[in-house]
Formats: sequence, structure tokens, C-alpha cells
Amino acid sequence: MKWCRFSVGGEASFGLIQDDTIARVDGPPWGEHAVTGQILQLANVKLEIPVVPSTFFCVGVNYRDHVERMAAKRGSKPSYPPRPDIGYRANNALIAHGEAIVKPRDAGEQFQYEGELVAVFGKRCRNVSKEQALDYVFGWTIGNDVSERTWQANDRTLWRAKNSDTFKPMGPWIVTGAELDAMVTTIRINDQVTETFKTNNMIFDAPTYISEVSKYCTIMPGDVMWMGTDGVPSNMKPGDVCEIEISGIGTLRNKVVAE
Amino acid sequence: MKWCRFSVGGEASFGLIQDDTIARVDGPPWGEHAVTGQILQLANVKLEIPVVPSTFFCVGVNYRDHVERMAAKRGSKPSYPPRPDIGYRANNALIAHGEAIVKPRDAGEQFQYEGELVAVFGKRCRNVSKEQALDYVFGWTIGNDVSERTWQANDRTLWRAKNSDTFKPMGPWIVTGAELDAMVTTIRINDQVTETFKTNNMIFDAPTYISEVSKYCTIMPGDVMWMGTDGVPSNMKPGDVCEIEISGIGTLRNKVVAE
Repeated sequence: MKWCRFSVGGEASFGLIQDDTIARVDGPPWGEHAVTGQILQLANVKLEIPVVPSTFFCVGVNYRDHVERMAAKRGSKPSYPPRPDIGYRANNALIAHGEAIVKPRDAGEQFQYEGELVAVFGKRCRNVSKEQALDYVFGWTIGNDVSERTWQANDRTLWRAKNSDTFKPMGPWIVTGAELDAMVTTIRINDQVTETFKTNNMIFDAPTYISEVSKYCTIMPGDVMWMGTDGVPSNMKPGDVCEIEISGIGTLRNKVVAE
Repeated sequence: MKWCRFSVGGEASFGLIQDDTIARVDGPPWGEHAVTGQILQLANVKLEIPVVPSTFFCVGVNYRDHVERMAAKRGSKPSYPPRPDIGYRANNALIAHGEAIVKPRDAGEQFQYEGELVAVFGKRCRNVSKEQALDYVFGWTIGNDVSERTWQANDRTLWRAKNSDTFKPMGPWIVTGAELDAMVTTIRINDQVTETFKTNNMIFDAPTYISEVSKYCTIMPGDVMWMGTDGVPSNMKPGDVCEIEISGIGTLRNKVVAE
């Protein structure tokens, strides 16, 4: 199933997508909800971020090839994460599929995408095993962890580098029952493929992260966990269109504009 | 004025405190709201966290004396933050005044409080000057940034060290129109004062932080910014009662229990 959050005339609802239509649903897909009988054309609504999380979890470094090629680029030795240390991003940065990524006036040239698989949680999750972990995931969407690399090297907390307004496109929708091992992530700038990788080829996979986080932190329905990116991202400049496609989910498309 | 969030029979409302009573209010104090006419006894309700933020901002290091004494304790040179780098905490860790701080089974001896002033925002805030910054603050409350120091030294992102469930007591209520320069923070463990400092004696004060963050990030009504702590915190063990008092606001009291 394909769930979205959309708005018409400013009011947001959840909806079930079938082909070119959306069936409007009252209530969140992971809670009490009812299909309303109202059917809308997908082309006539604005897609919103598929969920507003109460906690926005994000994995920093989670692909071997990314670690090695980023280290080579910096001329340093690759350093693999010894443990699944989860991080955080901020809701102010979230934007929907189709909305503009605004490059701040003082951002430098190394203004880059990171294409990520995103787990959306459907149940309250605490102290779960690796084997049970995916039972708590409602579905999967796509995130673009936009990063300003000069700030990333200098901000103690990555706050500006990773969390400036519009730096976290998420969407276009949530797919349930997706096959992680079959997924391929493809990133395109202006229709040119700049990166492609096996989505599930992670250092610590989603079940490992979920199980580890849940030992200390309660993950709530509607929370999201972004799973990191592979490869060496390219720069984006105003006017560019960035697409993150994950097979089995869809394509998250956002244009870059100047502040 | 003294605003709280409270519950009776599991349902949460905002309320205005006067002496020993609460006037129940429909809607958030920083949005459309109406005083209902219902009056409750403060002693008969459960205080809840005064707000559930959409983004939970937190200043890491913000007092000169804290930097110097923590460095001396580690035997290293003090290193002052060169810029106001804001960080983040996670909503899963929030608990109310009176709720128990749960010390995880595998936490070490250095399980410590940090008493902090908390700004609660009342208006959407983007690109504001230092001079205007406090106009966006609705009021002030108290936070206890509970920290496990061994994890803090080892977690790349401080996730467990600072964001395990129950590690972020906040409350007891929000005070409007408070005088920052008159505030004194006093911390007590089992009625013994362990620390006292001038609350507003910060390296970068609230207007500086708010103005700087708002250059890149939209701060929303109901968001909170924790302002850091001074001094060298002591250890807490199960059975201890930790009180953070800030004059002009009140006292945040939480007992430590073992997992």
C-alpha cells in the first residue's frame, strides 16, 4: 500500500494512493483511522511531508563505500563506525516532494544531497530484538539529507550544516511491505545519474539500529529513522533538480533555488 | 503569569496557575485559546511537561566556569565555544516535574544532573535581531539535562548519554515576564545544595543564540531552547531526589530510581 499526506486548500489529510487517485483517510495510518469515501486526483493535490515526527532519528555514517571514498577524497584513512550511534535532525528543515531546497546566501560550493532510505514507525517500540524490529516499522519513504560541507566541518553539532530550513526533503509517500534487499537507490541531478547503490548494503542495517536505539529510547508511532547514504555526493547549485529514486518506493524530486 | 500543562484522568490541558488553583484553558497559551471557567486544585492534578516541542534545541556548553572546572577535573585546558552552535535533544527523553528519572541498568556512577534555564517560544521566529529576539519567547521554564558521562565520552552523537528515556525532566510550569538578570539557579540533592550560580551569566545569552539560530532555522511556537548549565555536576544514585530551582520560576523536582 502507498500512503501519503496531502493538502487541498491548506488543510492536510492522510490518503491512500491508487494509480492516479487518492482516497482521503481521517486519522493517521498507524492509528485509528477511517477511509472517508472521498476520492481526489493525485494531480490536483499538494503532497506534504508524509509525517511530522515527534523524534527525527538519523544515522550519520552507514555505508562502507561512502566511508572509504569520502576518506580518499579528504586524503585520510577510512574510519568505520564501531557502534550504531544514532543522531538527530530537526523538523524545521523538513520539506515535501516538489518543494524547493533553498541554498542559503552564505553557503559554499559544497552544497550536496545525500539519498537515504527512511523507516516510518507504526507502533511504540522499546526494547525490541533485531528479529522483531521490522514489525514496528509501518513503511518506508525517501529522504534527502542535504548538507553544507564547510559548515559540517566546522559546526560542533552540525546544526546549520544539516538542519537549515529546507535541508531535509522527505517523501513523496510511504510504501508498506517493501522488499529491502531488492531496493536500489539512484540519484540524478538534472536527469544525469550521479550515484547508484544497493540500498540495503548498510554497515548496520535497520533492524540492528532499531533494536539498539530501543534499548534506551522509546520510538513512537510516526517517528522516522533516516538510514544514511552511500557513495560520494556531488555539489548542487541553484537551478538544479535533484531526484532520489529508491526502487519499490518512488522518486523524491526537489529543485534547488538561491536564497 | 504562570502557565502549566496538566492532566486529570489522562487528558491533558493547559492551565493558568493562581496560588493553589488552576484555571483550565482550551488551546495553547501561544495560540488561539479560551479560559474555560473550570477551576481545579493544583494538588489534585498531575503536572505534565509544559509543552511538547516540534524541535528541541539545546545549548551544549555555555558557562565559563563550567568549561574551566570541567577541564580542570579532566586535567585538560579549558576550551571555550567560539560560536553559538546549537544542538538538539529528543522528545522521547522528556518527563514532567515529579516523574522518576530512571537510571539505566548499564549506566555508570557518573550519572549527573545539569540544571538549565529553558526558553519556550510563542511566535514563529526567523531572521530576528538580538534586540528583537526576546519578543519571540513566550516564557521560561526549567530543564534537567541528565547525562551519563561515560557514554557522553564515547557516543559520537551523545544519543544514549543525553537522550535515554526520562533523561530530560522539564517543568514544573512556564513563567512569563521573568527577569533573567535577577535569576539564580540552585541545585539540591536530597535537600543539600550542590551548586548555585547566576542563571544569566552565559557565554552567549539567549538573545544571541535565538538570533543566530533564526538566521538558518525557523523556530516554531512551542519549541524550546535549553540554555546550558554552570558548575561541575555531582553524581545521582537511585533514591536521590534532584531539585533544580530557578528564582522567579520555581523548582523542578525528580526522584532517581533504578531500572
